[in-house]
Amino acid sequence: MQILPPALTDLIEAFGALPGVGPRTAERFAYYLVRHSSDAPLKLAESLKDLQGGIGYCKKTFALISADQEYSDLYTDPRRDKTIVAVVAEPFDLVALEKTNQFHGTYHVLGGLVSPIDGISPEQLHIQELVQRIDEDKVTEIILATNASVEGESTALYIQQQIGNRDVSITRLARGLPVGVDLEYADQITLGRALEGRRAL
Amino acid sequence: MQILPPALTDLIEAFGALPGVGPRTAERFAYYLVRHSSDAPLKLAESLKDLQGGIGYCKKTFALISADQEYSDLYTDPRRDKTIVAVVAEPFDLVALEKTNQFHGTYHVLGGLVSPIDGISPEQLHIQELVQRIDEDKVTEIILATNASVEGESTALYIQQQIGNRDVSITRLARGLPVGVDLEYADQITLGRALEGRRAL
Repeated sequence: MQILPPALTDLIEAFGALPGVGPRTAERFAYYLVRHSSDAPLKLAESLKDLQGGIGYCKKTFALISADQEYSDLYTDPRRDKTIVAVVAEPFDLVALEKTNQFHGTYHVLGGLVSPIDGISPEQLHIQELVQRIDEDKVTEIILATNASVEGESTALYIQQQIGNRDVSITRLARGLPVGVDLEYADQITLGRALEGRRAL
Repeated sequence: MQILPPALTDLIEAFGALPGVGPRTAERFAYYLVRHSSDAPLKLAESLKDLQGGIGYCKKTFALISADQEYSDLYTDPRRDKTIVAVVAEPFDLVALEKTNQFHGTYHVLGGLVSPIDGISPEQLHIQELVQRIDEDKVTEIILATNASVEGESTALYIQQQIGNRDVSITRLARGLPVGVDLEYADQITLGRALEGRRAL
């Protein structure tokens, strides 16, 4: 017996494929779209269809760009300093850095982190392209903005080896207490890093 | 400057229209679909497009049905007892009742609850159709399965008045302690209802 129409159960199933969306949440999304008979379902459908053909990767930075572009605005904009490059693992990591409004260099997206368990070797990442950029763009500083995980640390180490003796300073993001967090609630590792990285007033 | 391609920001905006989905969750959905370049985006897009033309309402029960059907299987199936009707507010409320596997009557979806604040008057609900069904289907029992809210109670009262002197028993779902909940954690109103509705062993 059919309790709900297939058009609805299909939609619930498709929503269920999204991360963190269980059957109940998927039902809530579908019910909402049925109840509010606006253009929301069609708008979402159009956006999803446009996604496939609509995005590509910048040939220099490997950031996400429109399919009709060749290079990211973050690279071509004359206000961006091409000699400072922030290296991030995923295309979305640079959005977080951009939101600070404090970085005016360019980016380089690795496309992941070295992880033998997941079968990701350094050759699969855009590390050679990064080394090429050092020579081409006369890069003076590489900011390794990878996570403080085992994979992040080993990728950073590998990149350092690949850069070799080139005349470029390699920096990392500061580790320490997040702004607004009380000392007593900070974890030991973070506090240890904050001590190590202490600065003169 | 364009940090993310419009195809992606459009999708994030469209996801943001779903209930309980803020900007961060919408970003997570979009990023997931970009990263996992499977057929998930297209499948979801198709389901959304099918939604509009794919569903309709049963002419008897006002339950959600496929657009090519006229009546809900929950009404036409010969195993369903047409003389017992559970009255629910929304089409999705009957799914919860169906999941119990303990109800073998049919349903009647009101399409909302009487709510002067939201401008919903009794005439906008499918109450007259319910009264007609009592006569047509020789209904013996009406189970008012509306919520225990002010709107639910007043709608139930209105339905009772409309049914008038017809020879049909009107029942409500039992209120009491949920299965598995400790007495000490039950709220006073629920506990009060559980006392009122106590049954002989």
